[in-house]
Amino acid sequence: MLIVQKFGGSSVGTPERIKRVAQKVVEDHRAGNKMVVVVSAMGDTTDELVSLMKEITSNPSEREVDMLLSTGEQVSISLLAMAIKELGCDAVSLTGGQAGVKTSNIHNKAKIKDIDATRLNTQLDLGKIVVVAGFQGVTPENEITTLGRGGSDTSAVALAVALNADLCEIYTDVDGVYTTDPRVVPEASKLKYVSHDEMLEFASLGAQILHPRSVELAKIYNIPIAVRSSFDFSKEGTIVQEVSKMEKELVVSGVAHDDNAARIGLYDVPDKPGIASAIFRSLAAKNIDVDMIIQSAVRNKVNDISFTIARDDLRKALSVVEEIQEKIGFSRYAHDEDVSKVSIIGSGMVSNPGVAATMFEALAGEGVNIEMITTSEIKVSCVVKSKQANQAVKAIHRKFELDAIE
Amino acid sequence: MLIVQKFGGSSVGTPERIKRVAQKVVEDHRAGNKMVVVVSAMGDTTDELVSLMKEITSNPSEREVDMLLSTGEQVSISLLAMAIKELGCDAVSLTGGQAGVKTSNIHNKAKIKDIDATRLNTQLDLGKIVVVAGFQGVTPENEITTLGRGGSDTSAVALAVALNADLCEIYTDVDGVYTTDPRVVPEASKLKYVSHDEMLEFASLGAQILHPRSVELAKIYNIPIAVRSSFDFSKEGTIVQEVSKMEKELVVSGVAHDDNAARIGLYDVPDKPGIASAIFRSLAAKNIDVDMIIQSAVRNKVNDISFTIARDDLRKALSVVEEIQEKIGFSRYAHDEDVSKVSIIGSGMVSNPGVAATMFEALAGEGVNIEMITTSEIKVSCVVKSKQANQAVKAIHRKFELDAIE
Repeated sequence: MLIVQKFGGSSVGTPERIKRVAQKVVEDHRAGNKMVVVVSAMGDTTDELVSLMKEITSNPSEREVDMLLSTGEQVSISLLAMAIKELGCDAVSLTGGQAGVKTSNIHNKAKIKDIDATRLNTQLDLGKIVVVAGFQGVTPENEITTLGRGGSDTSAVALAVALNADLCEIYTDVDGVYTTDPRVVPEASKLKYVSHDEMLEFASLGAQILHPRSVELAKIYNIPIAVRSSFDFSKEGTIVQEVSKMEKELVVSGVAHDDNAARIGLYDVPDKPGIASAIFRSLAAKNIDVDMIIQSAVRNKVNDISFTIARDDLRKALSVVEEIQEKIGFSRYAHDEDVSKVSIIGSGMVSNPGVAATMFEALAGEGVNIEMITTSEIKVSCVVKSKQANQAVKAIHRKFELDAIE
Repeated sequence: MLIVQKFGGSSVGTPERIKRVAQKVVEDHRAGNKMVVVVSAMGDTTDELVSLMKEITSNPSEREVDMLLSTGEQVSISLLAMAIKELGCDAVSLTGGQAGVKTSNIHNKAKIKDIDATRLNTQLDLGKIVVVAGFQGVTPENEITTLGRGGSDTSAVALAVALNADLCEIYTDVDGVYTTDPRVVPEASKLKYVSHDEMLEFASLGAQILHPRSVELAKIYNIPIAVRSSFDFSKEGTIVQEVSKMEKELVVSGVAHDDNAARIGLYDVPDKPGIASAIFRSLAAKNIDVDMIIQSAVRNKVNDISFTIARDDLRKALSVVEEIQEKIGFSRYAHDEDVSKVSIIGSGMVSNPGVAATMFEALAGEGVNIEMITTSEIKVSCVVKSKQANQAVKAIHRKFELDAIE
């Protein structure tokens, strides 16, 4: 098999940990696999570089930030390659640019445009373990770029795509994807499989095990991702793969919750074309990400619009709302800063009517009031008071019998 | 003017110092100069990386060492570019590879083969201050290399050559080249000018202000180098340039001393072809650098051979000597581990007979015994007992009236 493995910053945070990763990689290589290993910067390296930078300027050039931060991965790839060679396997480290990772020229959040795998394939054919710097690439002009949030996971998946790898293993702080947050529900079960779409929903709901970018990419190119523990290599983890490969299909795969939410309601908004876009364009202009949006049915040519945002953005959002009130012409607005979003996720939902009803029953049974509801083909989300969120998650998890799977 | 400036690791050791360098560079830019700035890794960065590496392996791959260590300069160039931009001048940082520095593929001690200055010139023409990572380059295969000892000085001079710069300024721990070591002779005078050849002799004699590699290169391409203080930018420093440009030509420019020497004498060495090469080949095979070599006139088909080496190499050298004694067939050997080399250097020497005699008189006047003598066109070196070295330097300095120049 050709396997792409990715280890995050904490997995390579010290020389000891780097040696441990090297041991694992070498074992998998000796088991007959071709290995490409993607690593992030060691532990606190990025923070240290950022704090150096802050002593120089509070407004750094984005290009120079990439020049600076990309050194972090370059240090870890060279050390990991050394550690692998120390164990008697041949290895070579490659920067993003050397590995053929071509990106757009948007510094700090570049997108991978293409990977020229020639050099990677040459090194693999020589029997070498190839260690690649995650999170980085180069533009066509050979400018160093970084990929922004979720960049290293995305690097790994993109390399797996380019190399037509059999598997992409992402080693993380958790040992797999659970039916819900085990800190909330100790009975949560580890899923053996989830679909890419389910994983995307989990990811976008605060269970940020894999960055959505990487999952999207894996979905498009149909690359299976194994989410595994970087603390215990013996654990199996969860495989994220296309639905058709699933051995067993749960109607609901998991219950996710996002506690970092706030809700804003606008009342008596005039019902005319362009109003919604004017509201959300103003919020977007201030870089405020809006999550759920609900518009009530029209009565008397006005309606109510509610939306949720990250709680940190609440002050900023309220000032936008106040600013646009007169122009838009809504009568009043209100907010609730202590709400959580609780969601059920499952590819099986689409062919199983009544799933949403079951969820609402679970909430009703606990006396949890639902403030907002949205649904998609594989997800139902409810906004509830934060203080009832854990109770809601537990009840739903139990109702769908997720405590007992496997 | 197009000026290439080089700042070493201690000059950019902290964010504060980086800002100070930025200030200097911006001043020179605003005075109307085109500026290229070459920097080393910040202060202890390289040591820190090496100590991380030692926790991983005691026998690192040279390629991976270059991958690791080259990050040091990449950090300092990005921070310096940010600091310059913070002062309102446009700047761009370039790695060795981005700056077009092409090297041989000998890792850890690559030689600069060529510089493709296209990108440098483009950036300069845009009015930018270009900050280049010293000490590094890339092979034709885009492998990252480092240049080994004296690498950053060499980078600066090579860039000055490629850009046809008017001046290469090297900022160092000293404020110029002195007629002798000011710690030994407080009356030592700072030289306004020295020739490249004189500088080479100074460098090879322990007064290691500029690495000989960089001076050689500057000599071949006739680039003037200004040696200036990184502590006090207001000081003028010393210009290293071709002889013909000198305003004033001293017969003797300076007195150098090298206290890290040891002498080995081989007695009754058979006088036949190939003997000398056999001896020095054996020493070279153990990486022992031999400095002075003196062979006495032949008597009875044997002669005596004396040579000096770095004192640290003495044990290693003696074991080589012992090993080859039988094969070479010399009767005995002896060593003296407390010797120093005292030299006078001056381009004017070649046309001034009697300079060596003046030096010997100075030594005789102090009762200093001369153990070995070698001469070149611009240098006379004497080996003396280490305990008399300072006395010798002072006497010679006085004899040539170097206390009083300028």
